[in-house]
Amino acid sequence: MPETHLASDNYATIHPAVLQAIIDANRSHVPSYGDDAYTSALNATVSEMLEMKAQVFPVLTGTGANVVSVTAASPRWGAIVTSGHGHMIGDEGGASVRLSGLPLLPVASADGKLTVDALEAIDWHDGFVHTPQATTLSIANTTELGTVYTQEEIRALAEWAHSRGMMVHLDGARIFNALAALDCDLKAVTVDAGVDIFSIGATKNGALAAEAVVVANPHILGTEYIQKYLMQLPSKARFVSAQISALLADDLGIGLGRHANEMAALLVDRLTELSNSSRIDPLELTQKRESNQVFLRLPAHLADAFRATTRFYDWDALANEVRWVTSWDTSMSDVDGFVDAFEKASHQV
Amino acid sequence: MPETHLASDNYATIHPAVLQAIIDANRSHVPSYGDDAYTSALNATVSEMLEMKAQVFPVLTGTGANVVSVTAASPRWGAIVTSGHGHMIGDEGGASVRLSGLPLLPVASADGKLTVDALEAIDWHDGFVHTPQATTLSIANTTELGTVYTQEEIRALAEWAHSRGMMVHLDGARIFNALAALDCDLKAVTVDAGVDIFSIGATKNGALAAEAVVVANPHILGTEYIQKYLMQLPSKARFVSAQISALLADDLGIGLGRHANEMAALLVDRLTELSNSSRIDPLELTQKRESNQVFLRLPAHLADAFRATTRFYDWDALANEVRWVTSWDTSMSDVDGFVDAFEKASHQV
Amino acid sequence: MPETHLASDNYATIHPAVLQAIIDANRSHVPSYGDDAYTSALNATVSEMLEMKAQVFPVLTGTGANVVSVTAASPRWGAIVTSGHGHMIGDEGGASVRLSGLPLLPVASADGKLTVDALEAIDWHDGFVHTPQATTLSIANTTELGTVYTQEEIRALAEWAHSRGMMVHLDGARIFNALAALDCDLKAVTVDAGVDIFSIGATKNGALAAEAVVVANPHILGTEYIQKYLMQLPSKARFVSAQISALLADDLGIGLGRHANEMAALLVDRLTELSNSSRIDPLELTQKRESNQVFLRLPAHLADAFRATTRFYDWDALANEVRWVTSWDTSMSDVDGFVDAFEKASHQV
Amino acid sequence: MPETHLASDNYATIHPAVLQAIIDANRSHVPSYGDDAYTSALNATVSEMLEMKAQVFPVLTGTGANVVSVTAASPRWGAIVTSGHGHMIGDEGGASVRLSGLPLLPVASADGKLTVDALEAIDWHDGFVHTPQATTLSIANTTELGTVYTQEEIRALAEWAHSRGMMVHLDGARIFNALAALDCDLKAVTVDAGVDIFSIGATKNGALAAEAVVVANPHILGTEYIQKYLMQLPSKARFVSAQISALLADDLGIGLGRHANEMAALLVDRLTELSNSSRIDPLELTQKRESNQVFLRLPAHLADAFRATTRFYDWDALANEVRWVTSWDTSMSDVDGFVDAFEKASHQV
Repeated sequence: MPETHLASDNYATIHPAVLQAIIDANRSHVPSYGDDAYTSALNATVSEMLEMKAQVFPVLTGTGANVVSVTAASPRWGAIVTSGHGHMIGDEGGASVRLSGLPLLPVASADGKLTVDALEAIDWHDGFVHTPQATTLSIANTTELGTVYTQEEIRALAEWAHSRGMMVHLDGARIFNALAALDCDLKAVTVDAGVDIFSIGATKNGALAAEAVVVANPHILGTEYIQKYLMQLPSKARFVSAQISALLADDLGIGLGRHANEMAALLVDRLTELSNSSRIDPLELTQKRESNQVFLRLPAHLADAFRATTRFYDWDALANEVRWVTSWDTSMSDVDGFVDAFEKASHQV
Repeated sequence: MPETHLASDNYATIHPAVLQAIIDANRSHVPSYGDDAYTSALNATVSEMLEMKAQVFPVLTGTGANVVSVTAASPRWGAIVTSGHGHMIGDEGGASVRLSGLPLLPVASADGKLTVDALEAIDWHDGFVHTPQATTLSIANTTELGTVYTQEEIRALAEWAHSRGMMVHLDGARIFNALAALDCDLKAVTVDAGVDIFSIGATKNGALAAEAVVVANPHILGTEYIQKYLMQLPSKARFVSAQISALLADDLGIGLGRHANEMAALLVDRLTELSNSSRIDPLELTQKRESNQVFLRLPAHLADAFRATTRFYDWDALANEVRWVTSWDTSMSDVDGFVDAFEKASHQV
Repeated sequence: MPETHLASDNYATIHPAVLQAIIDANRSHVPSYGDDAYTSALNATVSEMLEMKAQVFPVLTGTGANVVSVTAASPRWGAIVTSGHGHMIGDEGGASVRLSGLPLLPVASADGKLTVDALEAIDWHDGFVHTPQATTLSIANTTELGTVYTQEEIRALAEWAHSRGMMVHLDGARIFNALAALDCDLKAVTVDAGVDIFSIGATKNGALAAEAVVVANPHILGTEYIQKYLMQLPSKARFVSAQISALLADDLGIGLGRHANEMAALLVDRLTELSNSSRIDPLELTQKRESNQVFLRLPAHLADAFRATTRFYDWDALANEVRWVTSWDTSMSDVDGFVDAFEKASHQV
Repeated sequence: MPETHLASDNYATIHPAVLQAIIDANRSHVPSYGDDAYTSALNATVSEMLEMKAQVFPVLTGTGANVVSVTAASPRWGAIVTSGHGHMIGDEGGASVRLSGLPLLPVASADGKLTVDALEAIDWHDGFVHTPQATTLSIANTTELGTVYTQEEIRALAEWAHSRGMMVHLDGARIFNALAALDCDLKAVTVDAGVDIFSIGATKNGALAAEAVVVANPHILGTEYIQKYLMQLPSKARFVSAQISALLADDLGIGLGRHANEMAALLVDRLTELSNSSRIDPLELTQKRESNQVFLRLPAHLADAFRATTRFYDWDALANEVRWVTSWDTSMSDVDGFVDAFEKASHQV
């Protein structure tokens, strides 16, 4: 039985360098609530990476990062345009809606990616007080379906949004996986692509609990107050900032993201080989595998048999669609284990 | 040029009997905030109509009635299942979301009506804390597309909802039009069909500004506090209650709704005749005409030409779909005027 | 027994001129949601009175007017500085807090009026993210205790507020009573005194249900969206605007406010005479009588005896403080009746 | 210069045993979002301590714990009765108000402790829809002023609250300091005293970021959904639970709290001795020192001189009141350092 699972990258462990960063920050008294050298250093690092003066806010959860971001970027009467698969729609317990009163305006998308064509096909009822006003475009990279936006794709969306006076938010819960997949740096798919506010997700990539909200557009005001009242200001912020800094140092985070992506690719490749040699039925991927998430359709009995050894989530139980996620700590021998277990499960059923 | 328009039944006038009821209630001092004989009488009337002890709250707007209702019927972590065409999605400025934090869970529907089949095809993720929980089913009768639920259809939805522990809300902004179309009484399509909380809409049917929220399910608690903080408790509530009572007396409201429905039918019939005699192009109705709303596709130039004399709304500007609404005060000669104007517009383009 | 009561000016009737304005606006079809000639005329009238281009929004309740106003004037992280007696604290069911998330920061005040001295004695913790930020100053004129701010007093408060970057809101639920008491025009105690946003309350002064939110500061944006989602956009707005216009025409509203004030003065004078002639015990006013509200301490048994004929509210039941309110429709013979009834009650106990 | 400061116990370090618990939990893949053995163990431990089946939710911040708790304990129309010094009023950025729409009803208190006498002196306007309804009593132990409620005091408050149908919340951000001061166990001042929902604060007592919400009253429903949408459900919850468990094991947390309390006592004693020997001016404590917080009035120049070496917060800048806080990691030699520095500062000024 494998030591690891395919349920989520938040099942994964803390990377030793991140843990060491926490230990290193644990020296005598340090000011609280972000007024500390670790948070200042994080601000400096990110600002340098972006070649601009950014504001960086360490927060505690991915949902927290998203809600702080879209709240800061939206007027009270705004609404959030997002993919119909958006994390904010089905996976955050309604937080952005409940806490900030921002309706979500889902746009259908087969692969989790928005396109300008899809956005232009909608009558947004601009200026019509009866309809929630589309003020903020929110995308995730990687998307909730594991697909990856290129810089050009984001830039096109941002140009459309900005031309209408909208803000652009990028949910970077898996930004390191995206950077690895694109082989580019943070700046390329954020400020260079027109993103106004975004998050750097560390928790799913080797941290204990750490995300950063990065405000790139100086017209976004008051984020420090919003962070506080949305309960995303850690009292011992130094430990949160230190985790993120550890992943930014020497591109550790991108390396971890690349490894996770590669393990997903390896898993798909190995299972494809097995099916080519007729030892298992062909895999029916429901999304192109571009990062560390694999979406596929599995007969229910096969899914259940595989589940006996390996945890993973149903994605759409009614459609027999499941999701497999690899992590920074998924090893090649873990993949061997998954493949063996899957093959055995295939024969059981 | 017609005296009336096809824009909305809230363009229409106050019916003389409603105005007289306001005048009659304007005698000396009367207790405020609903502690008055007019509101008591409204409670008694509705309770008698429903053959139960209902709680009736006079409110000021249709959006107000809906938000009070779904808020009272939903726990904090709830969400509202509604048609993708639901008034709450596009027509209330996001009020239920913004004021009560209740996400809307839209269900696709070609004719604005939900069905049990459509609801059962969805994985609701019951008990999964990450997904907003479907706690409240909200339907409108007539629907936002002018279609009408039968008692059987509502009962089937209510049985599905109740079997899952959900509450059922019925938006009755145009309930009088529905009752006229169904030729039934209020009880038949509310408490007899399993509805837990609903509204009686008077404003669109001859009132100045008056809706009633009716709580039929005694497990719904605290509506009086919710009405107040949602700013739907009129200080001079007597004048609101009196308006509604005027429409309930002698089935005046149903009669007005029937007239409006008939004028819509007449308009469609007359234009169909014209097209049969080749004097205009055939009408392309996009919804079956069941009440006082007519949805149709019009070439943009024809729509614009007709608009020169008659106000109406685009429904989906990108799809050239428009909406015509008749009112209690639309006369047969108004319909003559619309038909003439439409024919002229047809020849202009 | 008097035809009228001393409970509240919202027990009072609709003034004939207001009722006539409703009747006059009831002609054929008129565009809805404020896109009508009556609302345009109201905008023009108020703008002319203020000698500026104001934005005027007809709304339905006093609480609604206040919540729309402070929401429009405050960022998400703001808080409302108000008198400890403020209507928003105890009398609106928590609406501004619940609907807009704006904490109330009460400032103690013996007479319901804020002063710069009282405000400067507080450490507001400006810029400290842990403390709700004082962004908006909200006063009422007349105050909830019937006292009246002069232009100079408001201007001093506004200067203090503006020097700190705060907005100034004036709750004008009883603005006509204040204008009558001050013998000045609307402009003097609003824009001339530095008020950024305020309401004109008509309901308590002879209307059915009508208040206006007036945005004087052009930096306040998006009020039209806020009005809608706060459910204060009447579908048949024409009838609301017409009511307010009727009170603004020929200073009718100020006249009605003056009459109400005078009846309160007469009531106090008459009872004082009675006590001077030892026919009743001396009145113990708890606030200076400056408008149409009288606050006094009454022994519980006397209060109860008087209540047998005349309705009024306890203000602070634990302190035996009660409130009497006269209205535009309180007649001199009503006052006679109150005085007689009070004297009789005094002798009963 | 001392290694530590007197600013806050959240300046303090992570205790080695807590850090070790994080390291120990960092083994292979573990289910996320609380579905893990560490969170189960925490539930079992707390339930055993309370001798009942409690529900325990690991959360990330103290404000988060409070808002989850009062939200779960309150209906939508509720309001929170709390000390005028309450953390929720001035120190949480308005979170409970903004996120849950629960007005705060502050009750004046000289020492931060509520009493039944003070509560009974208030007219709560029960059942009056215009006034936010007092549904939830929230106290902190230790209080925000460092004072400590005894079991009897809490029980009296709980009896008052329960007799009115209210829920009782206890903010345990510094519960370990209170338990040490009272020399009692957790059960004594929570469930045995009638508390319905409370928090166990670990962050201020040696943890990285960890609080637990404990639901003791089974009538409180839906806390799991509220925790999620309030963004207090950590994805890697195991690490949060492990921190708290480490403090509960072998009464480590109480021991740390006791040490912090003793260092505060020592600091006050030492400075009192100095003043007795006339080497410094007498200390003017503004609150009785009962736990690890010391409140005192300091001349501004002395405060500033001391601040040159030692960080601490102004509590009321206008009243020259400051707050000193000792921590689990404040050593006796740190206290020596503070005393020396304070004496030097006294001579400088």
